[in-house]
Amino acid sequence: MTEKYTNLLARLHTLNDLQKSIAVLHWDRETNMPPQGNSGRTQQITTLTQLAHEIGASNEMGELLAAAEAELTNADYDSTEASLLRYVRRQYDEERKFSSDFVRRRSEITGAAGFAWSQARAQNDFTSFAPHLQAAVAIAQESAEILGYEDEKYDALLDQYERGMKTKDVREIFEKVKRETVPLIHAISAQRDTVDDSFLFQSFDVDAQKKLARYAAESIGYDFTRGHLGQVEHPFSTSFGRNDVRITTRINPEFANSSLFATLHEAGHALYEKGVGEELERTPLAQGTSSGIHESQSRLFENQVGRSRGYWDAHFPQLQTHFPQQMGRVDTESFYRAINKVQPSFIRVEADELTYNMHIILRFELEQALINGELSVDDLPAAWNEKMETLLGITPPDDAHGVLQDVHWSQAAFGYFPTYTLGNLYAALFMETARSHDAQIAAELAQGNTASLLAWLRNNIHRHGSKYDAPELCQRATGQVLTADPFVRYVREKFGGIYQMR
Amino acid sequence: MTEKYTNLLARLHTLNDLQKSIAVLHWDRETNMPPQGNSGRTQQITTLTQLAHEIGASNEMGELLAAAEAELTNADYDSTEASLLRYVRRQYDEERKFSSDFVRRRSEITGAAGFAWSQARAQNDFTSFAPHLQAAVAIAQESAEILGYEDEKYDALLDQYERGMKTKDVREIFEKVKRETVPLIHAISAQRDTVDDSFLFQSFDVDAQKKLARYAAESIGYDFTRGHLGQVEHPFSTSFGRNDVRITTRINPEFANSSLFATLHEAGHALYEKGVGEELERTPLAQGTSSGIHESQSRLFENQVGRSRGYWDAHFPQLQTHFPQQMGRVDTESFYRAINKVQPSFIRVEADELTYNMHIILRFELEQALINGELSVDDLPAAWNEKMETLLGITPPDDAHGVLQDVHWSQAAFGYFPTYTLGNLYAALFMETARSHDAQIAAELAQGNTASLLAWLRNNIHRHGSKYDAPELCQRATGQVLTADPFVRYVREKFGGIYQMR
Repeated sequence: MTEKYTNLLARLHTLNDLQKSIAVLHWDRETNMPPQGNSGRTQQITTLTQLAHEIGASNEMGELLAAAEAELTNADYDSTEASLLRYVRRQYDEERKFSSDFVRRRSEITGAAGFAWSQARAQNDFTSFAPHLQAAVAIAQESAEILGYEDEKYDALLDQYERGMKTKDVREIFEKVKRETVPLIHAISAQRDTVDDSFLFQSFDVDAQKKLARYAAESIGYDFTRGHLGQVEHPFSTSFGRNDVRITTRINPEFANSSLFATLHEAGHALYEKGVGEELERTPLAQGTSSGIHESQSRLFENQVGRSRGYWDAHFPQLQTHFPQQMGRVDTESFYRAINKVQPSFIRVEADELTYNMHIILRFELEQALINGELSVDDLPAAWNEKMETLLGITPPDDAHGVLQDVHWSQAAFGYFPTYTLGNLYAALFMETARSHDAQIAAELAQGNTASLLAWLRNNIHRHGSKYDAPELCQRATGQVLTADPFVRYVREKFGGIYQMR
Repeated sequence: MTEKYTNLLARLHTLNDLQKSIAVLHWDRETNMPPQGNSGRTQQITTLTQLAHEIGASNEMGELLAAAEAELTNADYDSTEASLLRYVRRQYDEERKFSSDFVRRRSEITGAAGFAWSQARAQNDFTSFAPHLQAAVAIAQESAEILGYEDEKYDALLDQYERGMKTKDVREIFEKVKRETVPLIHAISAQRDTVDDSFLFQSFDVDAQKKLARYAAESIGYDFTRGHLGQVEHPFSTSFGRNDVRITTRINPEFANSSLFATLHEAGHALYEKGVGEELERTPLAQGTSSGIHESQSRLFENQVGRSRGYWDAHFPQLQTHFPQQMGRVDTESFYRAINKVQPSFIRVEADELTYNMHIILRFELEQALINGELSVDDLPAAWNEKMETLLGITPPDDAHGVLQDVHWSQAAFGYFPTYTLGNLYAALFMETARSHDAQIAAELAQGNTASLLAWLRNNIHRHGSKYDAPELCQRATGQVLTADPFVRYVREKFGGIYQMR
């Protein structure tokens, strides 16, 4: 009956296993690989990437796909079969545009640049990284030309991470975010001293932090029989299949929040991957549908849940148990206020919910200029510092606290950064919708219980994997298109309360 | 000039990268993978193994190989080129015998059996493992038939691990080992109480053991910028390329020797892989030439070095620093005697140098019987216990301390066990030769310094990788064929001294 489809599936399974193996090679590179292993590892990743490309873009794959399409013309739009064929068709047509040589070059460039970046950041040495970054910009530009675009070159790159979203739409939404939050940040500045977060900066035992990280991940439903927590410099999560979805965290012995919120963030990503429908396993649909939707899940658990009063009403006693000396005499309200202190700072991943988006807008604007050739790599550090001053009123003391802080550009991942703020906006929209759909969710959240919320997310988002693009998924889950409004309502309500500005 | 050879090399690099990626997948399975990840991991390993087989046994590979052979008919026998062509020809002809379906089945069977074994061992439940073991025996038998053999079916399996060695030769050498060491074990039994090792069995802090393991690895030349030490139940080493060769250890909080000697053992393996000539990198020659030669390097560093008086004269103060409470009042001679106590015991990996080979001979005899169909899987536990009684005079209290203790059979690795004792014999021969070649080596070893020894091993063994089969390598390095004699001389001298029987 579906013999052609079954043949296609078998080939997709091979491709999936290759791609998951590449993910393991990447994960190991970040967590365990000794420094001298990098060149061999880049060769391994490059070879597997090239093999995956050769299979994914092969004539054979084209024939299998066409045969399955002919067999299943009447399949229901929402079925796994029809969804998979839609996805694979688009992927295949795109993959065909890239030569095997291009794929190899890109992997070699990003493999070397990633390594150079981590050295450069550690040594605060932008100059040593500059040629690698130049190569990464060039390969991204080449990629955009190969993919093609109508309006802006950047559209082609953005589309790789946020299918169906145009640069001009993002720009418009971000302008609204800027317009609404910059005055709020200024108003808060005047009240800054009403929040004391000094007790967050003390010595916190590393082993106790690791235990707390496991506790935090489990508190929102992350299951360690299907997971693993690793320690890295730059936290990330990754999936090798729905039963092996890993998270990592970064431990700062002088500031427990680093690890705590990184863990909640990565566990949020992981819950998405773990929640993909079993029927999609080993197909390209078995993953989050876009970077923005993915980020909505991590930011939702990191912020909307993890920085809420309800969560800490339930879990602060546990935190006190882990750190009796540091936290024994702090009360829940003071802790809640401290972890929500709004204050311009240099490092994106440690920014508060309001200033965070300014870090993203900065990167979004700079990377468009890089891709369009309006900004050279040599001028980038100065441009970065200037924009930090404009947006947040501060200037980084050095490049390690500025342009060198993020891995993304070394990976030629231009177009990725805006999805972080899109994630924040989606998170606010999803949370607002979930609360209004089911009164139980709000009642449970007030007690730090995320069970009904997770059930709503699984049902409306997770289980679909990549069956629907972000805009379509959003419409189905919320009945709306994405705007900045729910986020603006959320931050006004929350920070208005904390800073008594309502 | 060598265009065809270069084309072949490129294809071998692809194959190498695939095989190293499989090694990473295995390593991660043992060190980090969550329990529910196993079925996905088995699929990934199976897919990559099948891809590697498809490339390795392809017509294209055959054509590349034939063209390179025609191009290089005059290459010097010892050159990398000629050695590589010899190796790849044999490998290719063998690989062609296996169907892709067979390769997939074998990977699926061993993937599931490995997991079942670790569960069964933890629960001391042979019954749950039996059907998996049956499948592993059957696939090994099938493999032997596919490979073909002249005298004994077991020859075909042994040849996979110890190229060029026949079962009857091993049997003959092992009979000599039995003949010479059993009386020695008996003689020692009468003197057993002259060695006290009770102080080895105390509480040893896990973190301090980890630090000591790193110290021990470095003490024999293992370099962590090209390595990594992981913690597992069943220690192993693995190589992802000469600049990323990893070791693992097992930590027993009540017995520091477990981790200490496992680390020296695995670091010995790793030194071999790290020492392979750079010119062989990314080719199939960039690995140890046989399991027996590999084991000679691990056993040499674990025992001939790591259980020598000279090594501890130099390093015992460090051990005392790590464990002042447990070891502060022990003297070097008492420690040296304790770690060399001869005593029949149940677990192979913790056996002393004399009884160890009895564990191997037991497995060697049982697995021949399994492969020949003379012994059924159901009768195996009883046969195991009976042979333990005959060889060592003790009977395991349960299967976890008997037939379930080793991973090998779950991996269908029949033919591997004898290489452990071959390794012991090679180690003794190499050590005897090295000492006689260079007086500096013996002088340094007496002070716990292995630098000249390592240089000799690198020059005579490591750098050649798989250019020569074990018997040829042995002849080149020592001018002799392998016999049990150097080992017998070594143990007589050493244990004669410890038990005052000279």
